[in-house]
Amino acid sequence: MSNFTEKRIELMDRLTRIKKTLRNRKLDALLVTHPQNRRYLSGFKAGDMIINESSGALLIPRRGRPLLMTDFRYQLEAETEALGFDVLIYQRGLLDILKKILAGRGIKRLAFESHYFLHQSAGKLESLTRKLEIELTPTIGLVEKLRLCKSPLEIEKIRTAVLLNEQVFQQVFGELKPGVTERQVAIRIETLMREMGAEGPSFETIVAGGPNGAKPHAVPSKRPLQKGEPIVIDMGLIIDGYCSDMTRSVVLGEMDAKTKEIFRLVRKAQQAGIAAIHEGVTGAEVDRTAREIISEAGYGKNFGHGLGHGVGLAVHEGPGLSRRYKRKLKAGMVVTVEPGIYLPDWGGVRLENMVAVTELGSEVLNTDTSFLDV
Amino acid sequence: MSNFTEKRIELMDRLTRIKKTLRNRKLDALLVTHPQNRRYLSGFKAGDMIINESSGALLIPRRGRPLLMTDFRYQLEAETEALGFDVLIYQRGLLDILKKILAGRGIKRLAFESHYFLHQSAGKLESLTRKLEIELTPTIGLVEKLRLCKSPLEIEKIRTAVLLNEQVFQQVFGELKPGVTERQVAIRIETLMREMGAEGPSFETIVAGGPNGAKPHAVPSKRPLQKGEPIVIDMGLIIDGYCSDMTRSVVLGEMDAKTKEIFRLVRKAQQAGIAAIHEGVTGAEVDRTAREIISEAGYGKNFGHGLGHGVGLAVHEGPGLSRRYKRKLKAGMVVTVEPGIYLPDWGGVRLENMVAVTELGSEVLNTDTSFLDV
Repeated sequence: MSNFTEKRIELMDRLTRIKKTLRNRKLDALLVTHPQNRRYLSGFKAGDMIINESSGALLIPRRGRPLLMTDFRYQLEAETEALGFDVLIYQRGLLDILKKILAGRGIKRLAFESHYFLHQSAGKLESLTRKLEIELTPTIGLVEKLRLCKSPLEIEKIRTAVLLNEQVFQQVFGELKPGVTERQVAIRIETLMREMGAEGPSFETIVAGGPNGAKPHAVPSKRPLQKGEPIVIDMGLIIDGYCSDMTRSVVLGEMDAKTKEIFRLVRKAQQAGIAAIHEGVTGAEVDRTAREIISEAGYGKNFGHGLGHGVGLAVHEGPGLSRRYKRKLKAGMVVTVEPGIYLPDWGGVRLENMVAVTELGSEVLNTDTSFLDV
Repeated sequence: MSNFTEKRIELMDRLTRIKKTLRNRKLDALLVTHPQNRRYLSGFKAGDMIINESSGALLIPRRGRPLLMTDFRYQLEAETEALGFDVLIYQRGLLDILKKILAGRGIKRLAFESHYFLHQSAGKLESLTRKLEIELTPTIGLVEKLRLCKSPLEIEKIRTAVLLNEQVFQQVFGELKPGVTERQVAIRIETLMREMGAEGPSFETIVAGGPNGAKPHAVPSKRPLQKGEPIVIDMGLIIDGYCSDMTRSVVLGEMDAKTKEIFRLVRKAQQAGIAAIHEGVTGAEVDRTAREIISEAGYGKNFGHGLGHGVGLAVHEGPGLSRRYKRKLKAGMVVTVEPGIYLPDWGGVRLENMVAVTELGSEVLNTDTSFLDV
């Protein structure tokens, strides 16, 4: 089966599933504005630079052909990428074209994505639908729910992203030496990602040496990396729409006893977390398994974030591995497992791999095991 | 006067002006969620990766100290950057902390930014304020209006961005040769931007050779650049928060007669547009002046976008140089002037400079005049 056919079948399957959701909820159509949901359902790749500069929206009817509305900048891409969609080009924005097309389609109940729709636009959409006697229903996460469990094709794409991520990391790690700044390393990483075929980073690369590593989301600074200090490198890339997310903690030169202790503790927590992942366990339970190891060693308050999160078309998506996620994991979900210990004035150690939930248990998508040498 | 003092005075002036807006509109406080508005009023630099992952919000009361609410990831930056703000760290998001702090502040009418606030969040904010008997008022563009006219300090920052942009362009242009792909050039540009001190690009760099240049917003492809074809390079960077935006159209080797004709026509339109800029003229009038030159030469339908847009903390902001912008330009505004001609199957030519409206007329911020040699 050609890639093209496979892709087409996958897109049709997604449409079938979202149409089923619409039927179950007695909705006649869904307006899709969230960039990753738009891509998931249509194959249309453009992202939004910012929500106010949207590159388009989908109208998915319960019956009949779906529609992609965009502007002239994306016409060519829309027509080649959005298989099975009618493409409509708007001149004066989404609301204006909806005014022209919503009538006469037999839509009595229209849903929109309340979690990615501006209050200002919702007001306009409300007055429009009121005039057309269409009932407007805000929804949250209908498409995200479908995206939770990945198909084998999607898992392969995520694996590709993870492996490319490791290659970039290994090359940059080989080049690291004391004196280069965090910022220089981050620039090198993001340049290499693109040169090696990624669309770009999936989030802003973190390179944090010594004390800076105590901030879980440190911004790379002009501080030169130093021998012996713990350095956190957290990086992710996008390829063919799918994201990777990986953290390594490294030391230039010898690792001292304290760093080793922290490093091994984080690794132990990570391995326990990974071992706890299987169908039927909740995200909260996996989080607790890893967290207990860190808490019992007395560092509980130095691990201030959740254990992990889902990754797919978005670098942060469901499910969560955190106290608050009480639902059960299912085969096809892909999550990060990323415990960390952060000590003010000293620094941080975080280790992050990506793991797919399978019918047999779980599979670590990363292949790099250099952190086992510590 | 030290930079620090100057910056502090500027921030205090902005606060004074927004508080005056609140008084005039009989609002007791404004909730600021738009990333650039947040930075403009507080100095807090963090951006939003996506609206659903906000790095915080401001509460600007009509009287008394303003407040920055953010999460633990940004605590350190918030405390050092947001001069004169109280910083509050939330654990469970903005709505949760608002629940705790809105009461007891004497706020009877609270405004929020309808153009950068999700429908989902607005629903929650509405029920919260209803309970507290606070009247909730959606507003659009209150802070953007203050941002329209730049201070001398801001213009200097924008000039710095423009000049760095030109340096990056000149270096990359010197390296260009047939056979390198659009994508390689774009990666090189974005890498150099960062290496030369920019925070990053202000939008996705466009490098479009031959037929690809017929799309005004082409995505850099794997197509190698060829001798003799028109190549559009549209690039912008951010430094110290402020954006640049510049387009050059170049040819490797000799420029043929047709390209020269189109190039000179676009340049003539650009120069006419720039000459038309002064206080009191409307954006629509400036657009018309440049557009007429292209239309009279028979290419009117090949110039499918507006003549220009404002640039500042955002790469696209007010005022517009377009048919729809009927308000008058004022000293301190900074706009792009970027006419283009796009011919399907052939390519495009676009030239873009940035221009500040001054009390005496206007000032082109660019210094590069190499395009005059054609």
